[in-house]
Order: sequence, then C-alpha cells, then structure tokens
Amino acid sequence: MNPSLNVSMLQNDRFLRALRREPVDRTPLWLMRQAGRYLPEYRATRAKAGDFLTLCKTPELCCEVTLQPIDRYGFDAAILFSDILTIPDAMGLGLQFVENEGPTFSNPVRSADDIAQLPIPDPEGELRYVMDAVRTIKSGLSNRVPLIGFAGSPWTLATYMIEGRGSRDFAHAKKMRYDAPQLLKALLDKLTESVAIYLAAQAKAGADALMIFDTWGGVLDPDGYRFFSLQPMARIVERLSVIAPGVPVMLFSKGASAYLLEQANTGVAALGVDWTLNIGDARYRVDGGVALQGNMDPTALFASPEKIRELAGRILDDYGAAPGHIFNLGHGILPGTPPENVAALVQAVHELSPAYHAAAADEAV
Amino acid sequence: MNPSLNVSMLQNDRFLRALRREPVDRTPLWLMRQAGRYLPEYRATRAKAGDFLTLCKTPELCCEVTLQPIDRYGFDAAILFSDILTIPDAMGLGLQFVENEGPTFSNPVRSADDIAQLPIPDPEGELRYVMDAVRTIKSGLSNRVPLIGFAGSPWTLATYMIEGRGSRDFAHAKKMRYDAPQLLKALLDKLTESVAIYLAAQAKAGADALMIFDTWGGVLDPDGYRFFSLQPMARIVERLSVIAPGVPVMLFSKGASAYLLEQANTGVAALGVDWTLNIGDARYRVDGGVALQGNMDPTALFASPEKIRELAGRILDDYGAAPGHIFNLGHGILPGTPPENVAALVQAVHELSPAYHAAAADEAV
Repeated sequence: MNPSLNVSMLQNDRFLRALRREPVDRTPLWLMRQAGRYLPEYRATRAKAGDFLTLCKTPELCCEVTLQPIDRYGFDAAILFSDILTIPDAMGLGLQFVENEGPTFSNPVRSADDIAQLPIPDPEGELRYVMDAVRTIKSGLSNRVPLIGFAGSPWTLATYMIEGRGSRDFAHAKKMRYDAPQLLKALLDKLTESVAIYLAAQAKAGADALMIFDTWGGVLDPDGYRFFSLQPMARIVERLSVIAPGVPVMLFSKGASAYLLEQANTGVAALGVDWTLNIGDARYRVDGGVALQGNMDPTALFASPEKIRELAGRILDDYGAAPGHIFNLGHGILPGTPPENVAALVQAVHELSPAYHAAAADEAV
Repeated sequence: MNPSLNVSMLQNDRFLRALRREPVDRTPLWLMRQAGRYLPEYRATRAKAGDFLTLCKTPELCCEVTLQPIDRYGFDAAILFSDILTIPDAMGLGLQFVENEGPTFSNPVRSADDIAQLPIPDPEGELRYVMDAVRTIKSGLSNRVPLIGFAGSPWTLATYMIEGRGSRDFAHAKKMRYDAPQLLKALLDKLTESVAIYLAAQAKAGADALMIFDTWGGVLDPDGYRFFSLQPMARIVERLSVIAPGVPVMLFSKGASAYLLEQANTGVAALGVDWTLNIGDARYRVDGGVALQGNMDPTALFASPEKIRELAGRILDDYGAAPGHIFNLGHGILPGTPPENVAALVQAVHELSPAYHAAAADEAV
C-alpha cells in the first residue's frame, strides 16, 4: 500500500490535500453520517436489508449506501458505512439494535474476568465483513474520491460495553473509572490494540484516511478525559504511524473542545470540531498544527436554504484564508434533515469557498 | 425585606457568606436536586402526593421534601422544591409529566401568534402555590439555613416550550433560532420578564438567594449562546438588582464553561461549574470576581466512600485556600445514588475543608 500512489490516482484529492494542509481550489466537504436515514435511497436499501446489523454485515449493501451520497451530492470524501460497535460485537458481547432503543449488549463487561476473557478480534477474521466492505466500496468508488475508514475510541466503546446499552449518565462506566481505574485501563488497553489493528487493516483494505470517533469523551472530568479517553487515542495514533504509515488519522472528541491543543499534540493530521466552538478560535488555538474539520450545527440544516448559505459562509469566513479546512457538520447529520437542504449546503460551499483559497494563494505569492 | 437582617438571624450563614466571598470556618455544601428520588423519605412523600405535579403544587409537601435532606445531612442551604416548568405551565401550555418520558406540553409554542398570546404569569396569582411553598418552607426552616429560590433560564424554558417535550437535538428550537430569531427573541423577552418577577417574588416570600438553571445553554453555537441564552440571563440579573436588591443571584449554565468569564460579567454573585472543568482552572479564570459552586461529577457518588472522600479532597485542594467556594455537584444528584454515599461526601467536606479556611485566614493576617 502506497498512500501517495493512492492520492495520485484519485480524481478528486481535495480532502487528502486539506488533511495535509496543502492548497486546494475549494474547501472539501463531507458530512458525518452522510449515508443515513435522511436519504430516501438509504431507507430503501435498509428496508431491503431488513435490519441495521444485516446492512452493516453485507458488503454489497454497505457499498451501495456509502456511494449514495457521493452520487447525489458530489461530496469530496466517502466514509465506510459501518458502526462503531463492530469491535465489541466481534468480542462476543451479543450486539443487538432494538428499534427506538439503540444498541444493546446481552453480555455487558463489568468484572476483571469479563475483561480478561475478551479476545482481540482479527480484522480479517470475525471482522472480515468490514474489510470486505472497504474493498468493495474502494472498488465501487473507482477512485472518484478518497474513502475514510473509522472506529470508535476505546473510551466510547468501553462505555457501551460496560453499560450494556446507550446511557445518559454512564453510571457503571464512571463507577469503574473511579473505583477500579486499573480494570478500566485493562479494558481500554484491549480496545486500544483492537482499534489500532482494525484501523490499520482498513487502511490495508483501501481506506485512504482513518477517523476515530470519541462520541463520549466529553462526559468525563478533566483527569478522566486525559487518562481514559485521550491517552488511548494517542497510543492508537502512534501505533498507526508504524503499522499504517502515511495514512492520515483524524480525531473527533465531541464536547471536548477544551482539550483541542492536547488533541492536536497526539500527532493526528486533523481534528473534528463540534459546533460549540467558533472554528476561527479553534484555528487560532491549534495554530496551523493540524487540519480542522467542521463545524456547522447539524440542526442548522433544518433552517431555510438561504440561512444555510449564510451560516456556511460564516464558517468559511471564520476559518479564513488558510489551508487545512474540511467542511463538515459539528456532529452527525440528523435523521429528519431535508435532503434539499443538504444540497443547499453543498452549493454554498462550492460557490463561496473558492474565494478563500484564491486569497490564500495570493498571500503565498 | 432586608437581606442583611435575614443573614443575621440565620443560625448557619456559611452559604451566604461564601456567596459574598467572605471568610467561613468550612466550605458550605449543598447538592443540586438534594431533595429527590435517591432518598427513601422523598419517595414516601411523593407516593403520598400521587404524582409529581401534585407534589409541586402542594406547599406543605414541598416543605416536607425540602427539609428532608437538611434533616438527614445537615446541608448548609435548602432549595425550594419545585420544577423549572412552573412558568410555562402557568402560561397555559398544559404541562404533564409522563412516567419514563419526562415533561410534555399539550400546547407547544411555534408561531408568532402562539407567542403573542402568552401571558406573563402573576407570581402571586397562577404561581401563588410556589410563593406559598417558599413561605411554608421558610417558616419550616426556622432560620436553620438559608433558602434558595430558583427558575429555569429563558432559553432552557423556551426549548421545552417550542419542542413540547424534552429533546436530544432541539430541532424545532434551533430552527426558530436560525430561521426566525426575532420570534425566538420575542419569546425570550416574555420569559425574561416572567422569570425576573417570579424570582423577585420568591425573594419577597423569603428566599435568601436565587439561582437560574440554564440546563440547555451548552447545546447552542457560540453566537447563539451569547444572544439567546446568556443575554436574557444577564437582563434578569440586572433587573433583580433593582427589584430584589441585595439578594445574591447564582447562574449555572451546564456545558458552557467556555463562557465562564462572560457569565461572571453579568453581575451574578456566583457561578455553577460542571465537572468537565477543573475548579482551580475556573477560579483562575474568574480571578476572584464571583464565588464558584461545584463541581463533583454526580456519578462519582456511585464510587466507594473512600474514593468519594479522595475526590472531594481533590476539589477542595484544586479550589485552594480562598473564600468563595460552595461545594456542590457539577449537575443534579442522580436518582440511584446510595444515600450513605452522600453521607460520606458530607463528612469529607466537613472534615477536610476547615484546613483551607484556616490557611486563608492565616494569609489574611
């Protein structure tokens, strides 16, 4: 695998250029959860699959839904259609998606024995369906745009594994964090190794960039965030620099923008920024050290197309005339989002962003 | 009403002294939602009342549950037992509490007409039951500790009123924020006036301090937070300085510690701090300008008594030897919290905090 070769073969490499903070003609754009319930074509494929897990485990259908938003909107990157809970599922926790209830595990992890017995899943074994999906999508994309692979952060995966389901308070996971930190660390160590080899395998299967989603880092206290959320992610980034060299890694810790500089110091190529921080402030803080991805409020896509254009323009303006911006939402697109409003956002970024890059080019001269 | 007279009559005025950043012998302590489901005596009173709204609307029962945690733990302040949604209820929205679903309104507010028709509730009219509760509790307390009155912030109330229920995404409220900001402003203006006179009436009825809970400020983008959450609260604080002079006001905007200094500049006496910011960092940021209240992770009360003591000690140490700290959680106590763990926290603060105040007194000499 030679990433620079991948780049050169891509018809649209804006996204990878932006990740390296190189000049581009316009700001690349993709949306978290861009393949999802807001799209009628997604709902049709999902109905064909029957249930969500079957969809995730059928590479051809994963490919179909991954390509749908690329075909419809011309996004500058595709992202593997999958779920962050594939790893705990492969560890034998018994994942189920209950309608209107979210994910549940029949075997949550609570004791030292539970943790000791967890296997580290083989990416080309129990998780081969994910790698097959990456290969199928990569082939289906025909090098139109790069493909992003992803995984959940160890802490975020641990919260689901300990709670056995989604949670508002994370009482069980936090109890372990306070009362049995060495136990939590043992779980996170296993997840760190699992996530690292899982992401490296996605890169080997064809992913051009890798993203770590730390959905629940922001619910921790500062010490907890640093030790149990950020540190495992930093170890993954370091590990990937050895086992998947040259593949850019992005990190998105939702609700944790207070730690932006510490996140940047992990060696990632880019950071996701949620909508609670002005992206100009974020850029000022990281001072050119990493690319930034974000950060429109997902609910802003319920506003009028005119307002969406105005808000997109403001984000472009806040980031300013500098390389290294990837336009995205500050969190996943919401199920009820009107598809035509996404089209308005795409048009706005296409039309409004070139001016900033022309200005950057002028300054470079 | 003469607040300084109130103070002098109180047997325990640590809380009010800390609000004024005056020396105290030990750090005052109370917990948000200290009267609540984690207490068996609360559950007994609630069962007697039948349902939650009846409990809120029966002053004698409000008094009973307000005093329960004072009797059990010796907290340094009592807080009125009530709900932030009393104001929208009095505006005629048809509040109901559905078991396991939270609050719902049968008449959510969406249009200019809806907003124009909203009355500003008379605190001694439709909301007299709240003022009666304040008077009953004040009398029941016999000046043992001060009584805190409270209200929801205009933005937080608006989210429930617009959505018609609790929400994860606040899609309707955010749509109004983006597409019809003048409409949202009209709603917030009415709520600002309603909250201000409601809080002033609570002070007149006997509340010694007033607190504004901005539970959902943190879900806004930075401009949105400043215009739609913080500014209405600042206007309430200013208004109260005229219509309830001398009564200290506290402000707690959850998930919004990025704006701590701006919150301090509203003229409040104290700010609540959630557990995602080190309270020493918070103190450094506000630089003595306001008192700070917080900030133990509510889930830490699921840890062992030894760990709770260690964590309480760390928070006291992080705040350090300076006046102006009120010990509390970083959010409301959780329903499943073991009551004996709360006792462990109380004991820890009672035993560990005097050293810091002795040190502060030494420094003052």
